Amino acid sequence: MNSTEKSPRGRKKKPVKAQNSTFTIPIHISFLGGLNEIGKNMTLYEYKGDMFIVDCGLAFPESDMLGVDLVIPDFTYVQRNADKIKGILITHGHEDHIGGLAYLLKVVNVPVYATALTIGLIEGKLREHNMLDACDLRVIKPGDRIKLGQFEAEAIHVNHSIPDALAFAIRCEAGTLVQTGDFKIDTTPIDGQVIDIARFAEIGKEGVLCYLADSTNAEKPGYSASERTVGQSFETLFRRAGKRRIIVATFASNIHRVQQIINEAVSNNRKVALSGRSLENVLAVGKELGYLDVPDGIIIPLDEIGNYEPWQLLLVTTGSQGEPLSALSRMAFQDHKKVNISSNDFVIISATPIPGNEKSVGKVVNELMRHGAEVVYEKMYDVHVSGHANQEELKLMLSLIKPSYFIPVHGEQKHLSKHAMLANQVGMSSKDIIIAEIGKTVEVCEGTFRENGMVPAGRVLVDGSGVGDVGQVVLRDRTKLAQDGIITVVLTIDSAANEIVAGPDIVSRGFVYVRESEEIIGEMEQVALEAAQDCLDNDIRDWASIKASIRDEVSQIVYERTRRTPMILPIIMEV
Amino acid sequence: MNSTEKSPRGRKKKPVKAQNSTFTIPIHISFLGGLNEIGKNMTLYEYKGDMFIVDCGLAFPESDMLGVDLVIPDFTYVQRNADKIKGILITHGHEDHIGGLAYLLKVVNVPVYATALTIGLIEGKLREHNMLDACDLRVIKPGDRIKLGQFEAEAIHVNHSIPDALAFAIRCEAGTLVQTGDFKIDTTPIDGQVIDIARFAEIGKEGVLCYLADSTNAEKPGYSASERTVGQSFETLFRRAGKRRIIVATFASNIHRVQQIINEAVSNNRKVALSGRSLENVLAVGKELGYLDVPDGIIIPLDEIGNYEPWQLLLVTTGSQGEPLSALSRMAFQDHKKVNISSNDFVIISATPIPGNEKSVGKVVNELMRHGAEVVYEKMYDVHVSGHANQEELKLMLSLIKPSYFIPVHGEQKHLSKHAMLANQVGMSSKDIIIAEIGKTVEVCEGTFRENGMVPAGRVLVDGSGVGDVGQVVLRDRTKLAQDGIITVVLTIDSAANEIVAGPDIVSRGFVYVRESEEIIGEMEQVALEAAQDCLDNDIRDWASIKASIRDEVSQIVYERTRRTPMILPIIMEV
Repeated sequence: MNSTEKSPRGRKKKPVKAQNSTFTIPIHISFLGGLNEIGKNMTLYEYKGDMFIVDCGLAFPESDMLGVDLVIPDFTYVQRNADKIKGILITHGHEDHIGGLAYLLKVVNVPVYATALTIGLIEGKLREHNMLDACDLRVIKPGDRIKLGQFEAEAIHVNHSIPDALAFAIRCEAGTLVQTGDFKIDTTPIDGQVIDIARFAEIGKEGVLCYLADSTNAEKPGYSASERTVGQSFETLFRRAGKRRIIVATFASNIHRVQQIINEAVSNNRKVALSGRSLENVLAVGKELGYLDVPDGIIIPLDEIGNYEPWQLLLVTTGSQGEPLSALSRMAFQDHKKVNISSNDFVIISATPIPGNEKSVGKVVNELMRHGAEVVYEKMYDVHVSGHANQEELKLMLSLIKPSYFIPVHGEQKHLSKHAMLANQVGMSSKDIIIAEIGKTVEVCEGTFRENGMVPAGRVLVDGSGVGDVGQVVLRDRTKLAQDGIITVVLTIDSAANEIVAGPDIVSRGFVYVRESEEIIGEMEQVALEAAQDCLDNDIRDWASIKASIRDEVSQIVYERTRRTPMILPIIMEV
Repeated sequence: MNSTEKSPRGRKKKPVKAQNSTFTIPIHISFLGGLNEIGKNMTLYEYKGDMFIVDCGLAFPESDMLGVDLVIPDFTYVQRNADKIKGILITHGHEDHIGGLAYLLKVVNVPVYATALTIGLIEGKLREHNMLDACDLRVIKPGDRIKLGQFEAEAIHVNHSIPDALAFAIRCEAGTLVQTGDFKIDTTPIDGQVIDIARFAEIGKEGVLCYLADSTNAEKPGYSASERTVGQSFETLFRRAGKRRIIVATFASNIHRVQQIINEAVSNNRKVALSGRSLENVLAVGKELGYLDVPDGIIIPLDEIGNYEPWQLLLVTTGSQGEPLSALSRMAFQDHKKVNISSNDFVIISATPIPGNEKSVGKVVNELMRHGAEVVYEKMYDVHVSGHANQEELKLMLSLIKPSYFIPVHGEQKHLSKHAMLANQVGMSSKDIIIAEIGKTVEVCEGTFRENGMVPAGRVLVDGSGVGDVGQVVLRDRTKLAQDGIITVVLTIDSAANEIVAGPDIVSRGFVYVRESEEIIGEMEQVALEAAQDCLDNDIRDWASIKASIRDEVSQIVYERTRRTPMILPIIMEV
């Protein structure tokens, strides 16, 4: 028997290097996103003063982030180390992996490496920000090795719900790391490009120090279904549609899904029209770069659907998540300029609601049905498969890569915990697994694996053209305003004469307004007047105290009369 | 062959009565709730000037009903016909069937008929409204017949996720109607009381004019699982918990679930402590009325859990829907006064998220796991079964009752549509099925089945102590305020001198507030001043015009600088 020992489950332990070798300088992995929450993935690696970043995504605002358009990672740590950053690797073209990139490149303009489709999608974003020309985008392909200072990254092909997705094997003196983006194992993908399991196995044999992997579906047992099953389901459903028009809603970026829809349309002699800007954009990029095979004459402009019978038509649309302004929602609520829903429509929602969207998807289904359409959306019809690996796939990858250490990433706490349990099942000890958090730094080299310190990280809210200027106070105010509205109490004081010369006037917005409230307004004016007069009589001249007094009195009378607590905003004018 | 004809699927058509018989006076069924949306069930029946109501529930506000506490049906039509209403039948004690009753009884104080447990729960609500003594509550049991003017209603036992639930067979000269509340078929219920299938079959044989039935699970194939399967699952999970403390979150009203939890606690020598007010209330009622069998000494006050080891304890808690203020949420976020979560906890969430609650439940699971607890919440563990009939049960009921006409109720449009499709499958023709809507009246007698007219109906919003005083304008204002906040522009004008004597002052709330906004505020003041001065110079003296002018100018500058559209509220004071 040699010096490597076997664990009871047969896993090989790699020999630990001597403590004084140079290999004991650890790699630092800092999580700026992608942990404990959905969206905005971003990981930063550092070794001997060199840094690079994997992905830079955005998240959509949660329901309590009132008025916020989107959420990006905090770039403070990047800014502080701008001169060390050698480049940015992007795993694939989904918003939660590329959506923050335009903001990041304003902070640190370094080369961005990604596959052709991903670069195509990034170009679209940078064009919107008017910064395309200033950026250094470099197309890579699986097998390419990218030098990033002390690091070298090797791109490895994986399957996902967007073509051309990558994982990276990251090498430096201290060892090899493997980080997946989102991935699944699909042995019958639409483009024939199966995830490069063989390469993962080879790298696993060479020895992997640390593995970081997608945890999204770590709760789901078994294997994920192949994208191809959706195509088979479409075949059956298209027959069921019969003479009706078919409308399929799906994610714009799922180019293979769209390919299957187009294939089925061709077989059924239907013309295809697109509705939804993101769909048009992605398809233009996909077609131009050769990811999509569209026979001539099959796509028609949406304007021309009136020239065809229902059974000659198939519409592909955005809005599979019930987004209120999407094409499908507008169709459902009879608010679409070019498409009217009727009993001549057969609608397929080729997606599963992302947690939080169940209700809005349900509303769209209800409305479509109310107008007579048949709607197929249930799981049992196989109209959608996930792009993420299920438990058996995750375990297979762990078994092939055989890392010394493991960090589950890309998921909420519950997904990360489950993924860690799966690693336990394939024989990893819990001490070799870290469930990190946003802002945490993990330090890793042979013999060392621990959390070590924090970096500035968190959510930066983007609202309109402002980045990061909406903070907790503003959100708290908005929540308060949303709850019961606002009551403004204005009065003008002649400070020389020490007397109230106008008001108090009460102006409310978002507060109840009915018959009896006129009476309440009278009472509010009365107590505000008394409160202000009282202050003046007692020679209280600082406005803050007078306002506080007015606020107290008015809140109290409002609460007594209505059991509501609107925001009370006293304003004092001085003449 | 006799005069009744058989349809191809073997369904008997009942003979149609002569058009001039008295039976041609139709029954009117008006839907004041319970259709096309979740919650606030309410149906009103009328025949020859007599009316009665089945159920009166509430709904919880949707995300766009900012600041609203709850939603109840519109009682205008009831108020208008108060002298005709003979009584109110309640099917069971869930909020969506009894939650609006206190408000309804303020409009029309008639006898309320329900089973003992349901009455017990209603009493609690009326006590909160200080109106218990003024109401006439009558306990009924399955088999009882209630005279309601021209109608007679027979109570029939059904299974549901709360004990003592009823359906009603409603008879009048024009025929027999059957209305279910929520129901499922459970052949092994915890209390041994199987749904009275035999009675439904008998009534079906006698002939049913119209059937109105629960559609909640019309999307779900097969049969629903028995409540007893949850108990079996608890047995396995309690073993898996080992030496850890067990915490089970469930719906307070699911008394049979709680019974099974208590049984399992007894078998495992664990004491039971309750956390959550609604749980304590329901259990007090359930115990008092004999619905719950609790051995002496098994329940301990929550204060005393410190005296026991983790393996001697089981906590039952509310919050299975992730409600932010619930006991489980407070435990998860380390905000519970008496319970701290650690790796010594094994948590079972014995519920499925109601659509819309998936995200908040996920957050609670994440936090519990973050503190080291193991959490079991996935469908595959059978920790919950639904209280509603699946497709096969719905078809069985349709086959037994064999109604001439069918109205699917209790569900969103998609559930009603699916239920109608199930009726088609058992041989009913689509012309004998009506999918109604809130406010619609259906007219039914042998030979006649159609929608006929509308009654006033809709959502009445309850906010604080106000019922119905929050309308669309107020909600629109709140939405606007929530989005980007408010900017108040105040100025004082000396109307005699026709000059601005103070201001404009800018006060904002919920609007961005950072360095550069000082500059924006200066600009806002400037444009507001110019706009007002311009009006005065041009002898425009009506305040509305001046305000409009200020609003336009300020909005424009704000949008240009920030791409945001806060509410702009100009206020002019006059001295």
